[in-house]
This record gives sequence, structure tokens and C-alpha cells, in this order.
Amino acid sequence: MTLIPGNRRVIGVDVGGTKIAAGVVDQEGVILQQIRTPMVAGAGASAGLDAVISAVRELGQKMGICRLFEGVGGIGICSPGPLDPEKGVVINPPNLPCWRNYPLAAEVERALGVPVKLDNDGNAAALAEAQWGAGRGYRNVFYATLGTGIGTGIVFDGKIYHGRTGAAAEGGHVSIDYRGPRCGCGKPGCIEVLASGPAIARRARAKLAAGVGSTVLQMASGNPEAVSSEMVGQAYVSGDALAREVLLETVDLLALWLGNMVDLLEPDVMVVGGGVAAMLSPLLGEIRQRLPACCINSRCGEIPLVMARYGGDAGIAGGAALCSGVVAKS
Amino acid sequence: MTLIPGNRRVIGVDVGGTKIAAGVVDQEGVILQQIRTPMVAGAGASAGLDAVISAVRELGQKMGICRLFEGVGGIGICSPGPLDPEKGVVINPPNLPCWRNYPLAAEVERALGVPVKLDNDGNAAALAEAQWGAGRGYRNVFYATLGTGIGTGIVFDGKIYHGRTGAAAEGGHVSIDYRGPRCGCGKPGCIEVLASGPAIARRARAKLAAGVGSTVLQMASGNPEAVSSEMVGQAYVSGDALAREVLLETVDLLALWLGNMVDLLEPDVMVVGGGVAAMLSPLLGEIRQRLPACCINSRCGEIPLVMARYGGDAGIAGGAALCSGVVAKS
Repeated sequence: MTLIPGNRRVIGVDVGGTKIAAGVVDQEGVILQQIRTPMVAGAGASAGLDAVISAVRELGQKMGICRLFEGVGGIGICSPGPLDPEKGVVINPPNLPCWRNYPLAAEVERALGVPVKLDNDGNAAALAEAQWGAGRGYRNVFYATLGTGIGTGIVFDGKIYHGRTGAAAEGGHVSIDYRGPRCGCGKPGCIEVLASGPAIARRARAKLAAGVGSTVLQMASGNPEAVSSEMVGQAYVSGDALAREVLLETVDLLALWLGNMVDLLEPDVMVVGGGVAAMLSPLLGEIRQRLPACCINSRCGEIPLVMARYGGDAGIAGGAALCSGVVAKS
Repeated sequence: MTLIPGNRRVIGVDVGGTKIAAGVVDQEGVILQQIRTPMVAGAGASAGLDAVISAVRELGQKMGICRLFEGVGGIGICSPGPLDPEKGVVINPPNLPCWRNYPLAAEVERALGVPVKLDNDGNAAALAEAQWGAGRGYRNVFYATLGTGIGTGIVFDGKIYHGRTGAAAEGGHVSIDYRGPRCGCGKPGCIEVLASGPAIARRARAKLAAGVGSTVLQMASGNPEAVSSEMVGQAYVSGDALAREVLLETVDLLALWLGNMVDLLEPDVMVVGGGVAAMLSPLLGEIRQRLPACCINSRCGEIPLVMARYGGDAGIAGGAALCSGVVAKS
């Protein structure tokens, strides 16, 4: 099904392992209305599909649209990979066990009668930033979401760069430490295992275990195992030395990793989003300052590094971007 | 000057810090004739230019072309970066001190009356492999030359990927060891400082210093400082254990680095050339075997990894590729 031209709104659906977020988005990327609902990921393929369809119907009700898809040009779904964006097939994401080689786009299209596009969350969010957000007006955009995991997306000339089988732009699994700790993916020293939220918490716990005092221990009620990256972020804001040390180490690692991205891709802009990026936003200047020394040509490090427009709504905006007019043209 | 259509031959010129190689190349990438001559890099801009022009004239004489550029569509020059491929300007390569922000393409064009293109050696060689060599028929090509340094090039859809200022595809300076030794570029743990020819020699010397016996020491007349990567390669072929260990360590590092490239770019093929690649060619199967474990999706590691068509002539072929018909069309 090709996208319906002339329609000014699209629906973005963000499918995760435990919840679904869906929103109606206009042509400027403004999220007009949104809902959040649980995902049913462990009870078979059709239960998973039903959850997605119910979420879209619930959104329609909330919008008060009489005919659900009046004025809606398409539905864009983003979900964790691996998936095949061209065929709209979910392959085997660890946290969506309901679907194995499942033609999600075709099934939703059949159930709702609206054209559906599918891509992974990093790619989709990158496209939303390139079209409507902090990457707007730049030709080549590198996007990274820093959170529990680290996801990335690459947009060249307004189009998602997919690579050979749709699995490109897994920048979170670029290793900067071949002797480093194993990532969940099996590789050593991926930036995800070094600088994600859990890595920040782990780093703080290690310093506590080494006897460094910190307010994060009080926040965690004296239990080091309960220390979270959010607590480190809060402690940093209130001037905690351990928290500052942990975040500056993270800044060093991210700067080297972003330098790798510049040396390889030299994009026109780098956009960072996600919870860890928000926590590090007061330190974004520190990353910018380190970047030239992390690039072979220091002048190349003088590249715009900016915060994403979309925070927790990146999945909705990303889904919507997949079936916006800009994409439909290509 | 636009390229002269209908001409079936192009000239490729490879300008290095100490020598120039120039060749006439046909439309299938066959080098019909070539010459090598010294480069004059330390005696000012015009002496450097004269060396390039003399090389091209010498080539013409060798070809026995009465009118030098009869049937020649253009001249493509590749040189070490940084340079501006769009403007044809050499910026400030450390080993070409003669030129600082020097409009080499325009100057050669003015002197010889033939259209001239300029790009860095990694990019140009990547294009030659994509058009005529081991990357032919693949859409997206990642190329790496492993030698004294490690250079790379990326070709998407038949075109060199340049990035924001023409400085993209510096894959040799992607770090896989943030705690590692400093590279000449100033970054820690670049693959160049870990797996280039000098790195292989250094690794062998460290093992010798630790008391490991090896035939490389005899090859170096008992002087560890004289051990070269070529000696390690020869010792490996004759069954030397130290040499095998050094090369397998290099294989591990290259596999992780290539895995990073796959995770980020997922090209359709990866082509490796250069002296170290030639030395490692009996171990290419080992790299292929390790690659799936070095990619987030192991299936993505099942990507063709092949030896380059062009060895020591990569610069000539690369220069020629810059002004072949395929490029002129784009």
C-alpha cells in the first residue's frame, strides 16, 4: 500500500517490550495527541498484534475522530530490531518474544486498512530529528539515543541509511575497548556497555565499593546495589564529587566514540537524545570541547553537537516520520 | 573543466611524500603503462607541481603518444589528506610540506590543459575497487588499505562518500582501545596504531624483549630494533611461533574493527589491500571466522571480505577512477 497523499497527519506507534506509545503527528512534527498502553509481548503473535491495534484505536477515540483514519496518511511503527524495514518484518527482538519473522506492517495494514511502515527505533528517531527536530536543515545527520541502551541512526540526504540487510547504524555496538567488559551483544567494550545508564550506575557502585563517599549511597538507602544512573544524575546536580567523576568519565568515553563517528562519517550534525543525554546536558559543552582532540583532523571535531527535540516521545515522532510526506516522496 | 567525454583512457597519478607513480588506465581499469619518479616535497609549491607535471609528461613519452593527451579524458590525482576534493585543494598533509591550501587540481589543469580531479588515496582506491576491482557489482563498498598506515574509503552507490568537509572515511583512526597507545594523530588506540605494519613490528619486538625466541631476530641480524613487519610476515610463512602469535593478535584486532564497520555501515562488501593485508592474506579466513562474533547481529558478519584487485598500483588506479566515465556521469 502506498502512502495516501494529501493527508496532513500521520500516526506514530512506538512498540516496546512492556508498553506501546502512539500519537497523531502533524506535518511539522508536532504531536497533537498521544496515548500509552501496555504491550503484550509474551502471549503469542496475535496477542501482540491486538495490543498494537488496540493502541491505535484508543488513540483514535481520544482524538475524537469519527472515522478513525480520516485525514491520516499512514501509520509508522518503530520497534526494537532486528527487523527488515523494507519488508516490514520483525525478525527476532529479544524483548518482543511474541514475534519471530513476523510481517507486522502487513498485518497492521490488513487490520486497519491504512498504509504501514516499520523501522527500528534508532533509525526512526534519527529521521524525526532530521525532518522536524534538531537535525533539520542538515544534509547528513548522526543521531544517538543514550539511555538503558545506546541506539543510533544515520540519515543521509533525508533518507535513513539502512545498509545491506537493514542492520546498519548500530553505533551503540561500536567498541572502543577491545579489552573491555562484555556487552549484552557479546562484543567487548561497546559504547553501550561503557556509557549507558546501567554502565553509569555500575561505575558509581564500583567507586562506592572502593570506599569513595557520596550522597548517592543515601539516595539508595545505604544499599549500593540500588544505586541508579538517575541517582548519579541528581547527585551531580547537587555537587556530589563521585557523581561528577563518574559523569566526566562517561563524557570522555562518549567524546572518543563520537570522534570515531566523525572520523568515519563526518556528518553535518550530531544529535543526542535519551535519558542519559538529558542527564549529561549540562556537560554537553565538555563533550564539544573534547571532540576536536578525538578526531584525526581537529577542525572536523568542530561539528554541531546538539540535544534532540524529542525526548520520551522520540518513538512516536520516529514512527510518524517514517510515513511523513518527505519519506513518501523518496 | 568538465571531463572530456568519449575518451577511453584516463591518467591516474599517485602523489606521495617521496615518490610519484603515474599510469594510463583503460575503461576496464587495466593499467596500460606506468612510471615511477621521485616527488620533490620539500622545496616549495612550484617544485612540487613541476614534479607532478614532469611525471605525467614522462608517462606520455613512455606511451609514445605524439600529442600527450590524445584520447585521454582526464587526470585523476590522489594524495594524502587532508584535502578538499570538491575544490581540488591540498590542505596540509604532513608529508607534503610543499603545499599548504594549494589548488593542485587547478594548477595541473592550467599547466597541462586536461581536466583534473583530486581526492585522498583511501577514497580514490576505494572507488577503483568499487568500479573495477573486488568491489565491482556491489552497491556499498568499504575499503581498507593496511600498510604503514591504515587508510579507508567508503563508496555508496558508485560515489565516494565525503562527509561534511571531505574528511569522512578516516576509518584508520577509529579507536578500539580508549586506554591504548597514542596514535600519530593524537588519539588513543586507533586501529592504525594497533594493527599497521609498524604496530606489527612493535608487537614482535615486545615479545622478543619478553624473552620469546623467534627466527625474526636472526632475520634482523640479532638487532630487535631492526625487526620489520615484513620479517614477521616471512617468519610466519616459515612456521615461526612468535610471528604466528603476533599475526593472530592482529587478526583479532582487525576483526573487531571490521565488526565496528559492519555494525555502523553494513556495507555489501569489504575490500582489503596494502602490504599488511597481503601478509595477512593466508589468515583472511581467520578474520572471516571471527567477524560474526564481532557484529551485534552475527548474521551481518557473514559479509564478503575480499582482497583488493590493486596492490602497489592502488594509487594509480584510484587516481584514474576519479575521472573515469562512471564518475563523470554522477
